[in-house]
Amino acid sequence: SKSYKIAVLPGDGIGPEVTNESVKILKVIGEVFQYNFEFNYGVMGAEAIYQTGNPLPDETLELCKNSDAVLFGAIGDPAFDNNPDAKVRPEQGLLKLRKELGLFANIRPIKTYASLIKKSPLKREIVDGTDIQIYRELISGIYFGEKFTDENGDYAYDLCKYSKEEIAGITHLAFQDAQKRKKKLTLIDKANVLDTSRLWRKIVKEIALEYPDVTLDFMFVDNAAMQMILNPKQFDVILTENMFGDIISDEASVIGGSIGLLPSASIGDDNALFEPIHGSYPQAKGKGIANPIASILSAAMLLDYLKLNVAADKLRQSVEHAVESKFVTVDLNAEQNYSTSEVGDFIADYI
Amino acid sequence: SKSYKIAVLPGDGIGPEVTNESVKILKVIGEVFQYNFEFNYGVMGAEAIYQTGNPLPDETLELCKNSDAVLFGAIGDPAFDNNPDAKVRPEQGLLKLRKELGLFANIRPIKTYASLIKKSPLKREIVDGTDIQIYRELISGIYFGEKFTDENGDYAYDLCKYSKEEIAGITHLAFQDAQKRKKKLTLIDKANVLDTSRLWRKIVKEIALEYPDVTLDFMFVDNAAMQMILNPKQFDVILTENMFGDIISDEASVIGGSIGLLPSASIGDDNALFEPIHGSYPQAKGKGIANPIASILSAAMLLDYLKLNVAADKLRQSVEHAVESKFVTVDLNAEQNYSTSEVGDFIADYI
Ligand SMILES: CC(C)[C@H](C(=O)O)[C@@H](O)C(=O)O
Ligand SMILES: CC(C)[C@H](C(=O)O)[C@@H](O)C(=O)O
Repeated sequence: SKSYKIAVLPGDGIGPEVTNESVKILKVIGEVFQYNFEFNYGVMGAEAIYQTGNPLPDETLELCKNSDAVLFGAIGDPAFDNNPDAKVRPEQGLLKLRKELGLFANIRPIKTYASLIKKSPLKREIVDGTDIQIYRELISGIYFGEKFTDENGDYAYDLCKYSKEEIAGITHLAFQDAQKRKKKLTLIDKANVLDTSRLWRKIVKEIALEYPDVTLDFMFVDNAAMQMILNPKQFDVILTENMFGDIISDEASVIGGSIGLLPSASIGDDNALFEPIHGSYPQAKGKGIANPIASILSAAMLLDYLKLNVAADKLRQSVEHAVESKFVTVDLNAEQNYSTSEVGDFIADYI
Repeated sequence: SKSYKIAVLPGDGIGPEVTNESVKILKVIGEVFQYNFEFNYGVMGAEAIYQTGNPLPDETLELCKNSDAVLFGAIGDPAFDNNPDAKVRPEQGLLKLRKELGLFANIRPIKTYASLIKKSPLKREIVDGTDIQIYRELISGIYFGEKFTDENGDYAYDLCKYSKEEIAGITHLAFQDAQKRKKKLTLIDKANVLDTSRLWRKIVKEIALEYPDVTLDFMFVDNAAMQMILNPKQFDVILTENMFGDIISDEASVIGGSIGLLPSASIGDDNALFEPIHGSYPQAKGKGIANPIASILSAAMLLDYLKLNVAADKLRQSVEHAVESKFVTVDLNAEQNYSTSEVGDFIADYI
């Protein structure tokens, strides 16, 4: 049977709880489909700072580099957020890991579940049938550019920089996906103001010539933030730079009624990492109420990446079964109040 | 009777049509309240580029500097958006004008109208009663930082820079407004990643000590983009940097059911400019269908700025009367199909 090394980084807040469920389910999948998954754990984020002083210890980075895929939970801790002077921050661990693994493309599917549409803050007719694939550039732009704060705290800067190569890599992936979907790609930028956005527009236009079956259009980010709510169904594949992707994909996460359902894949040439879109949700930590589905669907994307597509589809069906049976956590079903691990068990049993 | 010089810059697209209505109404207000308004017109934006090669001709800038307030329409032209190589762009005119006039604070009120809530893409219970005041820093950050594209088009950058003074100016205004409102201020930033955001957080915290009656909280911009849709009523005054304000305020503009209703004020120490939040909407140009209310409510904010508060309130009542009577343009009332100028006349008549 085939063997796969999976690095598991539970991270902060509810990260460990939801990741537990995914590992539990992957183990079941391993048995059912006869795959040999080897799970190796590493620390990252606030947990890692508390234990080692470093949000991404070298051993964790090495572990990830030597694995076939990384399953990651969540990052962030209010103790750091509320301290603007902290020199070391949990998020640095995730940013560094993305960079070191070369995970240039973050893919975030946004779709709706029939039985959950009523949970959406948006009207049914606006969101019903939304199916968007967001491609967010993940290892460049302002999050990774030079940063500076002068010692007196009189000024600070962050540099947003993009190279042709950085733009081209993710652009090809997005076009290839668009070809398999509705053949429409929207570049979100602020090309009426920013030089980096104009570079994006230029390079994406050039690359579009190689994909003549895909319709390319452009939208300014401010308008896109409106259009995502006014008419999300106008979008098929969205391509955008790092920070715009961060904002627009979190915004889009409200469409289906719960951010607790949304997975993501971060892909590089030699590595890949899978994580929920949601954050560490520290208020829920340890209460057994966290929705594990975003993590479990991230595990399904991991299976796809390993080309174990039959298992991935089976896992997605099991999740859909849980959702349509309302066997879900309190965020989606306040009456029954199933716990994180009950939902995980239910999905595992169905496999 | 008192005299006021008002610079009128109709700009591009539907700008001239909607600005016409505001000027018409301000003239009626001048007669009714015995104010002497002197209107002087200037060109800006794509129109100005076509006429003079310059998106902000010196005469226009001088006119604005020598006026008591500026009434501005809209800017932008697809001929430039679709050309990443254009050296001169309409938007440069507006950005330069904001900078030269020192308009550091852009104030965008977001509220709902009872009779229009059904137009909102969001559910009634989510949006009903929303009343937010957004303070967007307007003349610094990444829109104004150093920009560069290398000659081969291999890379580009934009610098986001903030100084203590730039942050402090708008922060005081926002706190002062919060004191008159629900005494809650939310700073939106990305302090877990950006140095500039950490500087914002630090300075805003310091200034908060001078306004102990106001509760200050912080939200990351990605989360804020979600929260704005999940629960907009949690916000009272929002304070944020230039680009985040651009994105979040456009997003928030969907709440009430029409961006065609939303005004803005851009305030400096010696100058002020008033413009709709909406853009130049070139598809609607010349068709008489543009909603003039955002411009008319911007004129009301202009009256407030000139301390003509009784007239401003009267104007807002007239607008509310038009909205509640459904005497509005096709975007809000598809049956009756009132034209831009019919709506302007209706509001003028009520004064
Ligand atoms: C934790 C943070 C650094 C991260 C980001 O902004 O990239 C998160 O918000 C995300 O979207 O994955
Ligand atoms: C036209 C553009 C430069 C402008 C901006 O981004 O500031 C507009 O979107 C706005 O919000 O006023």
